[in-house]
Amino acid sequence: MIRHVAVITWLPEATAEARQQVRDELAALPPLLAGLRGYTVGADIGENEGNADLAIVADFDDVDCYRAYRDHPAHQDIVKRLIRPIAAQRRAVQFEL
Amino acid sequence: MIRHVAVITWLPEATAEARQQVRDELAALPPLLAGLRGYTVGADIGENEGNADLAIVADFDDVDCYRAYRDHPAHQDIVKRLIRPIAAQRRAVQFEL
Repeated sequence: MIRHVAVITWLPEATAEARQQVRDELAALPPLLAGLRGYTVGADIGENEGNADLAIVADFDDVDCYRAYRDHPAHQDIVKRLIRPIAAQRRAVQFEL
Repeated sequence: MIRHVAVITWLPEATAEARQQVRDELAALPPLLAGLRGYTVGADIGENEGNADLAIVADFDDVDCYRAYRDHPAHQDIVKRLIRPIAAQRRAVQFEL
């Protein structure tokens, strides 16, 4: 199994509505994805200073299923239309579970 | 439940042995932790350019259990002795699951 982790920091000017829309649209992806074992997305609770703002953790049967998610048109649409315009930084890791 | 996600990028000079030691010592923490529901740590598989190098995903019953992990002397020892000396960047998020 492959676990995909992404952590995103928003630009200061990113509005609460724009951040919420990213979470809402990402959360609607799972029915479109093959080989998905788990999908969580959430906003930082503000427990630690210097944290990023959003995290995604997605588990897939294998690397091919992860790639299909990464490259899925509905996912790429969210990335280009909603995430990139308001993201200051994104860091990701894929690892074997 | 609280999900803690951390993503770390190593300095270029961080050796394979030093990276492995971080993973090994982190993986030994769970028996010391109260209210832990899941703990995974893994090295990036190299699927995407520009990725970070290490990810940790840890699930806790509540924020207090997360704080106990964050502040646990055995964890702080790993952070100070093994992670900080070879880390170029660390980004984290805690979110409600």
